[in-house]
Amino acid sequence: MKGQFATRMARTQKSFIREILKVTQNPAVISFAGGLPNPNYFPIEPLRVAADRVLAEQGKLALQYAPTLGHEPLRTFIAQRYAERTGLAVDPDEILITNGSQQGLDLVAKILIDPGDHVLVESPSYLGGIQAFTMYEPEFKAVPLGEAGVDTAVLARLAAHPLSKLFYALPNFQNPSGITYSLATRQAVSQILADNQTFLIEDDPYRELRFLGEDLPPIASFNRQRAFLLGSFSKIVAPGFRMGWICAPAPLMDKLVTAKQGTDLHSNYVSQLIIHRYLQDNDLDAHIATIRAAYKQQRETMIGMIEECFPPEVAYTLPEGGMFLWISLPPQLSAMALFEIAAKENVVFVPGAPFHVDGTGQNTMRLSFSNTPAEQIEQGMARLATAIKQMMVGK
Amino acid sequence: MKGQFATRMARTQKSFIREILKVTQNPAVISFAGGLPNPNYFPIEPLRVAADRVLAEQGKLALQYAPTLGHEPLRTFIAQRYAERTGLAVDPDEILITNGSQQGLDLVAKILIDPGDHVLVESPSYLGGIQAFTMYEPEFKAVPLGEAGVDTAVLARLAAHPLSKLFYALPNFQNPSGITYSLATRQAVSQILADNQTFLIEDDPYRELRFLGEDLPPIASFNRQRAFLLGSFSKIVAPGFRMGWICAPAPLMDKLVTAKQGTDLHSNYVSQLIIHRYLQDNDLDAHIATIRAAYKQQRETMIGMIEECFPPEVAYTLPEGGMFLWISLPPQLSAMALFEIAAKENVVFVPGAPFHVDGTGQNTMRLSFSNTPAEQIEQGMARLATAIKQMMVGK
Repeated sequence: MKGQFATRMARTQKSFIREILKVTQNPAVISFAGGLPNPNYFPIEPLRVAADRVLAEQGKLALQYAPTLGHEPLRTFIAQRYAERTGLAVDPDEILITNGSQQGLDLVAKILIDPGDHVLVESPSYLGGIQAFTMYEPEFKAVPLGEAGVDTAVLARLAAHPLSKLFYALPNFQNPSGITYSLATRQAVSQILADNQTFLIEDDPYRELRFLGEDLPPIASFNRQRAFLLGSFSKIVAPGFRMGWICAPAPLMDKLVTAKQGTDLHSNYVSQLIIHRYLQDNDLDAHIATIRAAYKQQRETMIGMIEECFPPEVAYTLPEGGMFLWISLPPQLSAMALFEIAAKENVVFVPGAPFHVDGTGQNTMRLSFSNTPAEQIEQGMARLATAIKQMMVGK
Repeated sequence: MKGQFATRMARTQKSFIREILKVTQNPAVISFAGGLPNPNYFPIEPLRVAADRVLAEQGKLALQYAPTLGHEPLRTFIAQRYAERTGLAVDPDEILITNGSQQGLDLVAKILIDPGDHVLVESPSYLGGIQAFTMYEPEFKAVPLGEAGVDTAVLARLAAHPLSKLFYALPNFQNPSGITYSLATRQAVSQILADNQTFLIEDDPYRELRFLGEDLPPIASFNRQRAFLLGSFSKIVAPGFRMGWICAPAPLMDKLVTAKQGTDLHSNYVSQLIIHRYLQDNDLDAHIATIRAAYKQQRETMIGMIEECFPPEVAYTLPEGGMFLWISLPPQLSAMALFEIAAKENVVFVPGAPFHVDGTGQNTMRLSFSNTPAEQIEQGMARLATAIKQMMVGK
């Protein structure tokens, strides 16, 4: 309507997490809220050297307008890494460089979703995914998560609906739950989606941060026809570059490139060259091993404190990698109410309700262990245990 | 529909310009096609020093996730520059850092356009703008451009329609035409839009590249209420960073921030710090003066060749700044047909039809003078004159 915002804006809201981050500036507060990588493991000096080389040796190229798909050698690196680490055979032209995998979510939504289309999401699901999709006015359908991944019976039922357009999955160390799909679940999901012509967005930013168990193949590796596989350098190099990618077969990539052109022409090219230089001149595997070891120890400290200090009624997940674990309070308790109590104890987390599209999850919450040193985890978890106990006594 | 792309994708096509760029890799071809800044004037060494300082001194900050609005000191710099150079009083929180001004176009379209809304565009208009808006399924309305800017009588008539949502203007050295709005046109446009509650996107990436005449105030300076003013570092520093901004008052900014969060969380933060460091440590005005002097000379060479070699039936604009001028062949001639002939003569340009939303402009074309040295301009324009004469004889 004249003078008014678009209809889609009535359905959107600012990220609750980013709002929480604003109030955690107080240094006395221990935060398990933000999904931040630990900056102690940013490869700052190698990146400084890489930036120096790129601007000294390739300045004119790096600073000019560039191809929409992205820097070809960087796309080749990504394709080769898929081949080496997952067995997935990908052509470099099946990789589009994006502004983090968040932009991947927006671009895929843009080319797929008509208003009213059904978007199937895990319950809980990544808040930024829900936000990105909401802009295209779908109807969300929640598919419960269990220990081995998504509930395939519910997925099969929802995918059978004529309006089911896409399923959004984070099969490795999911944000927010920390859950990982089993191999059998991955295979079943792929088959269900193929049977129903339903697209897949497989959001996989944490894949390389596995510290327990064995790597499992991407869901997309069983059937690529309608699969968008998203990756990111944010968790293995640094998020400040906003550098991720979409891997998709040619017919899908063709539409993505059109959408990317209209959205921002191409991603920051200087940073693409810097990251590629960094990857050429350094041992990425050694770097990731350092991050994994640190996160594993932090995760163990956090789980140790849960076992030691939390009331036995509180359930929790046991992530095999990534940055998050998931807490379920007894059903009658509200994580939002706990947030208020905990904030007074100088510890914060993210209440779980915003991760649900169906109004459930009031008693759940997300804890991030990636950006807090072990001794602070101990302190923060002790405070959180105190807050939970206060609340349970109060009820 | 199940298994299908969204309806919006049926209306979009890849940028014709970017397709042309692909075929101009042949070094024998002189290209007036791309809207590329001249890389000889990229401040490569100062940017190398700035990148070095940022990563050495602020590495952890630069590489981490960051606020959606963007780096506060950079937004303050932009606000101050508006105050100094245009008299516009802007709060730094009224600036959102985007991935070039192209992303500004996408974000504004995202928060404003419902399918069927009328989007009023200059005729001709910037192709990337048309592409960005098309994704939100508006109905385009063409407003003719004359020597003093947009035809305000037509604008007033079209803005009066109940579905007129926004007017998209490039008032300074427009891409593609090179036309600049007079002061009177700017004032009249602002009044018409206010009278009709029509939003304004004022796309202003070339403002600082004026080499003739006097700076004129932004249209937005007369009434900011529904105005989005877009700027960019692409033309005054370098495009490879994809760094631009939207300037908009708080009620509009609030929606933009929500849209930006869902789209890509925030723009590349390392690059924001590098550009800010560069701006702190160097004399931007002196740098821009160098670019302006070079483009002015290139523009004069191009116009000199038109006057000397082109048939008198060919009309052209006289840009006071920027990177482009606009050619109108006699009405019965096709610029697309000329493109084929000219390509054989090893010179290319962009045919004008894609810049029009109403199917007109078949006889028009865009020439860029920014990225071609004077001697190559002479050679290329001589080839183009030959091609035009061949074509006119053929008719």
